[in-house]
Amino acid sequence: MALHFNKIGIIGKYAAPTVSDTLRQLVRYLQSKNIEIMIDEETANVWDGHELQVADSEALGTCDLVIVLGGDGTFLSAARTLCHHGDMALLGLNLGRLGFLTDISPDEFEVKLDRILAGEYLEEDRFLLHSTVIRGGEIVDESIAFNDVVIHKCDVARMIEIDVYIDGVMVNTLRSDGLIISTPTGSTAYALSGGGPLMEAELNAMVLVPICPHTMSNRPIVIDAHSVVEIVIKGTGDAQLSCDGQINKKLQLNDGLIIRKHNHMVRMIHPADHNHFHILRAKLGWG
Amino acid sequence: MALHFNKIGIIGKYAAPTVSDTLRQLVRYLQSKNIEIMIDEETANVWDGHELQVADSEALGTCDLVIVLGGDGTFLSAARTLCHHGDMALLGLNLGRLGFLTDISPDEFEVKLDRILAGEYLEEDRFLLHSTVIRGGEIVDESIAFNDVVIHKCDVARMIEIDVYIDGVMVNTLRSDGLIISTPTGSTAYALSGGGPLMEAELNAMVLVPICPHTMSNRPIVIDAHSVVEIVIKGTGDAQLSCDGQINKKLQLNDGLIIRKHNHMVRMIHPADHNHFHILRAKLGWG
Amino acid sequence: MALHFNKIGIIGKYAAPTVSDTLRQLVRYLQSKNIEIMIDEETANVWDGHELQVADSEALGTCDLVIVLGGDGTFLSAARTLCHHGDMALLGLNLGRLGFLTDISPDEFEVKLDRILAGEYLEEDRFLLHSTVIRGGEIVDESIAFNDVVIHKCDVARMIEIDVYIDGVMVNTLRSDGLIISTPTGSTAYALSGGGPLMEAELNAMVLVPICPHTMSNRPIVIDAHSVVEIVIKGTGDAQLSCDGQINKKLQLNDGLIIRKHNHMVRMIHPADHNHFHILRAKLGWG
Amino acid sequence: MALHFNKIGIIGKYAAPTVSDTLRQLVRYLQSKNIEIMIDEETANVWDGHELQVADSEALGTCDLVIVLGGDGTFLSAARTLCHHGDMALLGLNLGRLGFLTDISPDEFEVKLDRILAGEYLEEDRFLLHSTVIRGGEIVDESIAFNDVVIHKCDVARMIEIDVYIDGVMVNTLRSDGLIISTPTGSTAYALSGGGPLMEAELNAMVLVPICPHTMSNRPIVIDAHSVVEIVIKGTGDAQLSCDGQINKKLQLNDGLIIRKHNHMVRMIHPADHNHFHILRAKLGWG
Repeated sequence: MALHFNKIGIIGKYAAPTVSDTLRQLVRYLQSKNIEIMIDEETANVWDGHELQVADSEALGTCDLVIVLGGDGTFLSAARTLCHHGDMALLGLNLGRLGFLTDISPDEFEVKLDRILAGEYLEEDRFLLHSTVIRGGEIVDESIAFNDVVIHKCDVARMIEIDVYIDGVMVNTLRSDGLIISTPTGSTAYALSGGGPLMEAELNAMVLVPICPHTMSNRPIVIDAHSVVEIVIKGTGDAQLSCDGQINKKLQLNDGLIIRKHNHMVRMIHPADHNHFHILRAKLGWG
Repeated sequence: MALHFNKIGIIGKYAAPTVSDTLRQLVRYLQSKNIEIMIDEETANVWDGHELQVADSEALGTCDLVIVLGGDGTFLSAARTLCHHGDMALLGLNLGRLGFLTDISPDEFEVKLDRILAGEYLEEDRFLLHSTVIRGGEIVDESIAFNDVVIHKCDVARMIEIDVYIDGVMVNTLRSDGLIISTPTGSTAYALSGGGPLMEAELNAMVLVPICPHTMSNRPIVIDAHSVVEIVIKGTGDAQLSCDGQINKKLQLNDGLIIRKHNHMVRMIHPADHNHFHILRAKLGWG
Repeated sequence: MALHFNKIGIIGKYAAPTVSDTLRQLVRYLQSKNIEIMIDEETANVWDGHELQVADSEALGTCDLVIVLGGDGTFLSAARTLCHHGDMALLGLNLGRLGFLTDISPDEFEVKLDRILAGEYLEEDRFLLHSTVIRGGEIVDESIAFNDVVIHKCDVARMIEIDVYIDGVMVNTLRSDGLIISTPTGSTAYALSGGGPLMEAELNAMVLVPICPHTMSNRPIVIDAHSVVEIVIKGTGDAQLSCDGQINKKLQLNDGLIIRKHNHMVRMIHPADHNHFHILRAKLGWG
Repeated sequence: MALHFNKIGIIGKYAAPTVSDTLRQLVRYLQSKNIEIMIDEETANVWDGHELQVADSEALGTCDLVIVLGGDGTFLSAARTLCHHGDMALLGLNLGRLGFLTDISPDEFEVKLDRILAGEYLEEDRFLLHSTVIRGGEIVDESIAFNDVVIHKCDVARMIEIDVYIDGVMVNTLRSDGLIISTPTGSTAYALSGGGPLMEAELNAMVLVPICPHTMSNRPIVIDAHSVVEIVIKGTGDAQLSCDGQINKKLQLNDGLIIRKHNHMVRMIHPADHNHFHILRAKLGWG
C-alpha cells in the first residue's frame, strides 16, 4: 500500500538528553517503512553518528511531513519557521507530557503513525499572526506568532497606555500591564492566564486580551481573523513586543504596530481519533 | 431623488407613555417624505386616533424597513418575530437612553434618517440562535434567540449538571448554575455579566459561557457559528431554558437541547458614521 | 493516660449505604478506648441492632466531641445544629473523598484519632452567619449558615435589584443574579464559583460576592465579620434566600434582610499536622 | 474655641504648576485661623517667596496634622515617609480629581476644614506593609508600602516561579507574571486590576493576588494582617520587587522575601460625613 507521507523531516528538542531514545525509536520506525528521512540541523548536532540526511529549514520544507519531537514550545518554533512551505504538514510527538500541540505520546507513536501513514488522519489548518512595528514611517520589525503577539510593560512598576484600532476604527485607549493578541491556538496559553476565552482550534477569529487593565470593563474582545489590529504606543511606561514569548523587541513612544493574520497557515496532522476537547479536559482538569 | 426605503413599518414600545411624542414626530417626519407607513398592531392599540395603516407581523414583513422605537428588549423581540422576512431591514431608535441595538437618539433622528433614506447607511447582518428541546424522541419546544439561549437552574439552592457536545464531540460534564450560549449580539448582555468576552457584532461565532461553574477551569469557549451545540440535562437540580430572557421552558432530566445558528439573519441598518466600538465605549464606560 | 475526649457523639451521613462499614469501625475503635458513645437519631434509624445510646441534638450537645461521618454537606448541617453547645467540638471524617471540612480519611482515622484523643490536635474557631428576614416590621425568618447566605433570583430570566448597606452605610444598588454573603469557611464553596477570593479559615471577615452583576465594577467586597449587612429587596424579579444551599425562603418586594455574625462559633478539631493549604492544594489542583 | 489641630504641615505635589493656587488658598486659610504652618522642603522649592517655615520629614513629624495636596501617589509617598510619627495625622486634598485617599476637593476645603478643625472628623487607622529581602542570609533591602508589595517578572516573555508560605506553612508554588500583596488601602489599586476583591479600608487583613497565574485555580487569598508572608524566588525568569509602584529592587534566584504588617499605622483624618463606599461608587462607576 502506498504511504501518505514519503519524505519525513524530524525536529527534536535541541540538546534535551531525554530526546534521544524516542528519537532513535522514531528513526528506526520510519526506516522500517522505507521512508526518506531528513533531520533538522540542530537536532543532528546533538546526535553523534546518526548517518541521516541533515536539512536546514529550507530543505525541511521539501518534506511531506515534519514530525516535531518535544514540547509545545518546540512545535511553536517549528510552525513559525516552516509555515511558508505550503504543502508540508506538521505532527507533534511529546516526550511523555501531553501538550496542546504535541498530542501523540511516545508509548503510542508506532500505532498512531501506522494509521496516519496509511491515510487515516485529520488535517487542521491553523493560522498565525504577523506583526509589523513601524517607527517614524519605517518598518523596524516583522515577526510571526503562532500563539500570540503580546505588548507588555517593561518597567515593572508602571502601566502602559496604548491606542487600539480595529480595521481603522478606534476601539479604546487602554491603560494596562499589556495586551495579548491571540490566535485560537494561543487561547490555551498566555491569553487564558490573562482571562481570555478558549477558542475552537480552527475558528477564524483572534482575541484581544487586556492584561490587568486599569478599567474593569476592558474585557477580552473576539474579532474576525481578517481584521487588522493597529496599536499606537502612548505613555506612560516603556513597552515591549513579544511573539510566542520568545521574540522580543523594545518599543518606543509613538511606535505603531500592525497585527494581522499571516498569509501562510500551519497544516497540522492528527490521528483520526483526535479530539481537541479531550486534550482540553486532560490539560485543564475538567470533570 | 428616489428614497431607499419606500414602505416603513413602526414598532413602538408598547404602552410606554414616553413613546408617544417621539412616535408622533417620527410619523410626521415619514409622512413629510411621502413614505408609506405601517404601524404594528400593539403599538396601534395604545394610540387612539392615529389614522395609520395597522399591520400584523406578516404584513410588517412586506415593509422595506421597520423602525423599532424603544429599548434593546423591544428590538430583540422585533428581531425574533420578523427575521424570517429576508429582505426587510430593522433600525433601532431609542427613547433617550442609548442602547446597543437602538443606537439612534430621538434628538438626532431626523438628521440621521435624512441620510439613511438618501442611501447613506451601513448594513449589518447578524445571526440568531435556534434552540430545540427534545424529550423522549419528540420535539417539545422550538425557540429563537437574538442575544442568547440560557440553560439555568430553577432550584435556587442546587446547581445543575449537563453534558455539553459540540458537533457531536463531548466537551465536558458541566456542573454550574447554568450555561449561556450567546451570539455576538448577546455578548454585551447576560454573557458579559457571566464573564464572557465581547465579540465583534458580525463575527461568525458564538460563545458558551458557564455560569458560576463548580470547576474554575470551565471557561467561556468561542466556537464557529455553524457548530451545533447539543446539551443533555443530567442531575442534579431542575433546569429551565430561556431565550433572550423572555421565553421560558421547564426542562426535565434527560431532555436534549440542540442549539444552532438560525437559518435567517437580522439585517440591521445604521447611520453611515455608525461605530460599534463608540457604543461600547459609551455603554461600558471605557476611557 | 487520660483521654482528651471522654464522651463522643457520632453523626453519619443518613441512609448512605457506604457509611456503615466506616461507622462500625469507628464505633468499635471508640469502644476499644472505653469512650462513652452517643449516636445521632437519624443515623441510628438506618442501623438496625446497633445497641448504642441514641441522642437527639440536645443530648449530642453534652458530648465533648461529635464526629461527623460524611461529606461537607453533613458537616455543615451538624455545625448549624450544634453550634450553640459552646464546649462541644466537631471533627469531620470523610468517606473516601477529601472534604474541606471532613478532612480525615477512613483509612487513616485510627492513627489520627489515637493522637487526637491523646491531646495532640489543633483547634479552630470558625464563625457562622445569622440571617433575619423582616417583612412589614415583623421578623418572618431566622436562619443560620456556616458557608453562606445567598439571595438569588427565582425567576430564571430576570435579574434582581437589591440595596446593600454595611453598618448602616449604603454600598450600592446591585442589579445581578444574586448576592452571596460568605464566611471564610464558605469561601471555597459557592462564593468561589461566583468569583470570590479564598479566605483563611479563621479570618474574622466575610465576603460579599455579587453573582453575574450587571455592572462589571461590582466586585467582591471583604468586610469585617462584625459588620452588619442589610439588604432591601427592590425589583425587578422575585428573590429567594438560601443558607448553605439548603434552607430556603421566598422573599418579597421591600423585604429587609439583616446578616451578621452568629453569636456562637464552631469549634473544629483537626489532627496536629493539619494544614488548610494542603487541603486547598489537593482540592483545587494547585501545583 | 480651641482648634483640634494647632500645627499643620503641608506637602504639595512637587513641581505641579496647578498646585500653587490651591496651595496659596490653603495657606491663607490656615493663617487666618492662626495655625502654625510648616511646609515640606520640596514643596517649598517650587514656591518662591512663600515666607513659611520649611520642614524636612522629621520636622513635619512634629505637626498634629499634615495636609497632602495632590493625587493618591503623593499621599502614598507621604504615608510611607511619615507613618513612624505616631501622633501625626494625614489629610488628603485633591486638585480637582477625586482620589481614594485625597478625598477632599479644592472647592470645598474651607467648609470641610472648618469642621475638622472644630473637631468634627473621623479617624481611620490604616496599616502598611513592611517587606524585607534576604539574600545569602543577609538583609539586602527593606521597604514600606501603603498600597502593595509586588513581585513581578522582569523578563517580559517569561513567567516567574515562586514558593509562597504563610506563617511558615507552604501555600503553593506559584507560576505567574507575579504576585501582589495588598493592604485594604491597595485593594482599589493594582490588586483590583489583577482580579482581587475590594476590602473595607480598616479591615485587618491583606490579600495575595496572583497576576496571570498559569493555573486557573490560583485565586486571590485573603489572610489576617498579622500573618507573615514568606516568598522564595525560584526560576524561571527574573523577578523584581516593587512597593506602591515606586520603589524597586531586582531579585535573584533563591532570594527570600518576608512581608508583614508594618509596626506603624497611618492615621487618616476625614470629614465627619466621609463615606468610603461613596468614593467607591464615584470612582468605580457603580449605579
